[in-house]
Amino acid sequence: MKALQWQGDYLLILDQTKLPFEEKYREARSYLEVAEAIKNMEVRGAPVIGAAAAYGFALGAMEYQGEMNGLQEHMKEVRAVLESTRPTAVNLFWALRKMEDKLREVQNSSLDQIKQALVNEANTIAEDDRRMNRLIGEYGNTIVPEKANILTHCNTGTLATVEYGTALGIVRAAYESGKKVHVYAGETRPFLQGARLTAWELLQEKIPHTLITDSMAGYLMQQNKVDMVIVGADRIAANGDTANKIGTYSLAVLAFAHEIPFYVAAPTSTIDLKLSSGDEIPVEEREGKEIRMFMGVRVVPEEVQVYNPAFDITPAKYISGIITEKGIISPPFTVNLVKMLVK
Amino acid sequence: MKALQWQGDYLLILDQTKLPFEEKYREARSYLEVAEAIKNMEVRGAPVIGAAAAYGFALGAMEYQGEMNGLQEHMKEVRAVLESTRPTAVNLFWALRKMEDKLREVQNSSLDQIKQALVNEANTIAEDDRRMNRLIGEYGNTIVPEKANILTHCNTGTLATVEYGTALGIVRAAYESGKKVHVYAGETRPFLQGARLTAWELLQEKIPHTLITDSMAGYLMQQNKVDMVIVGADRIAANGDTANKIGTYSLAVLAFAHEIPFYVAAPTSTIDLKLSSGDEIPVEEREGKEIRMFMGVRVVPEEVQVYNPAFDITPAKYISGIITEKGIISPPFTVNLVKMLVK
Repeated sequence: MKALQWQGDYLLILDQTKLPFEEKYREARSYLEVAEAIKNMEVRGAPVIGAAAAYGFALGAMEYQGEMNGLQEHMKEVRAVLESTRPTAVNLFWALRKMEDKLREVQNSSLDQIKQALVNEANTIAEDDRRMNRLIGEYGNTIVPEKANILTHCNTGTLATVEYGTALGIVRAAYESGKKVHVYAGETRPFLQGARLTAWELLQEKIPHTLITDSMAGYLMQQNKVDMVIVGADRIAANGDTANKIGTYSLAVLAFAHEIPFYVAAPTSTIDLKLSSGDEIPVEEREGKEIRMFMGVRVVPEEVQVYNPAFDITPAKYISGIITEKGIISPPFTVNLVKMLVK
Repeated sequence: MKALQWQGDYLLILDQTKLPFEEKYREARSYLEVAEAIKNMEVRGAPVIGAAAAYGFALGAMEYQGEMNGLQEHMKEVRAVLESTRPTAVNLFWALRKMEDKLREVQNSSLDQIKQALVNEANTIAEDDRRMNRLIGEYGNTIVPEKANILTHCNTGTLATVEYGTALGIVRAAYESGKKVHVYAGETRPFLQGARLTAWELLQEKIPHTLITDSMAGYLMQQNKVDMVIVGADRIAANGDTANKIGTYSLAVLAFAHEIPFYVAAPTSTIDLKLSSGDEIPVEEREGKEIRMFMGVRVVPEEVQVYNPAFDITPAKYISGIITEKGIISPPFTVNLVKMLVK
């Protein structure tokens, strides 16, 4: 089961809002459909959002039937729509910039050649993500003890990436290498990615796991039941401050208080050197109904006021290391992130 | 709307598992029904569990039709059944001990007189709870600033008590006295008491509030949006260590890291001087289905492993003060709890 599958002339998107009990797919044949799927979180997870947006960009070009001289204007609109879907994960912007670079590179070719070049570029982005996740898994596995209780948050597995996963990819690599790993998966309210996606991926792979509510993490740490925390990232600023799914910051503070290592796993495309600190990362606020309702069942009346930030920012001081496809980056991040990126 | 109402020959129990959308009542006419209602969390919240158990004990006597010399044996069974419902909240044991004391006091009276004396004692326990909550509210209000954002967890309101509430009673007292209070209510997975009961009570009373998922507390504190945390308690050990709804410990660590005052509000019947520290407090573990399901909707397959402790233990060092009906107890608790109790 994969989050995305390119089908030659359309993008097959697994609707993750329906998992784990319904395997529903969307055949996205236009960039608007891809944008809608990203916005509704049918496809979610920073790395795969990047790939989805790249395919959306390619579809945007394939849809175009006008004159050659109108293409640039059309593609500007395509990019703007795709960029407007979700503000926090930088991989989306990174992938669209790569697509735009490719478009510029081939702009003097025929329309058919341009379309083909963009599809090829999206395929490359997807293929790179697969490869990078394997490398993140390999590097990450070097710091996982032979026997480890790993706490994670949200979903950073196959479903959050083109394949294999980032933080959960490390768990997978450790398990495949014969280590005795056990995962505590936080259910990750309000969208329950930890329950619906992570616990379910772990069940499929027969990796030992325990699902908890997000509020139980501190109590587990107090009881010495957690050896390390590994989470993903939606955007990492130049100083190492990291935006990730809401609840990550609480876990980081708790891990720090209990002297438990706290790692971030992400491809380097997640690093945004343009932002000097986490204060500059835009945090998406989503609709209140995600808290007021659950799977179509109402929990509280509409009149109850809610707050629904989708992400939070973990200051670099709480992060033990950032595990990328180029290696593990240690503090001080302000120096070492740049060093790693130019490597 | 009240959690309990004594009707002369039965106990009317509001089924809180159905709130806020269905107002369903159970007419408990036997001690076994009261025990079932406590166990299923139809009635929940440490203070009101005490009162419910007291009425259950009285019903146990009223049901008895045998010879006088068999009463003690029967009441031993009644007490054992009621005590076996939930292990953590000490108010349950405290109330049953009071009922047992009363039974011993009147044991030479007629059966009818004994039954009446036990009903009267249960009424006294309930009436005392009402009165104590008002006092907790008054004392607590003295430390609430004129303008305050108060974070709370679970439900400690009218529904958790015979009337008025403990931590939420303080909010109510502050609001009634004209202070500008705003409450952040953590939804309190898995049972969602914060969403279903607290947000709903606040809505009824028109007290400004914002419902959040439990994972958002840290992010709120990081943004300086929380002035103080006030929670309830299910049992307080002699050194001040406090058992309360799962997630409380995480909030305490987060509040400490952000230098935000963290208060516990509870009647002194919650203090268990027999236990020297929180390590000795039994923590109830509840069924996995509370996590695997959400409001009757299945979230994950039955095969997913879960962990469902209903409470956690907050070490005294994280607690700024304990607000009781006798006043506010400050650290060091080992000294000051005893002092207050003998006052």
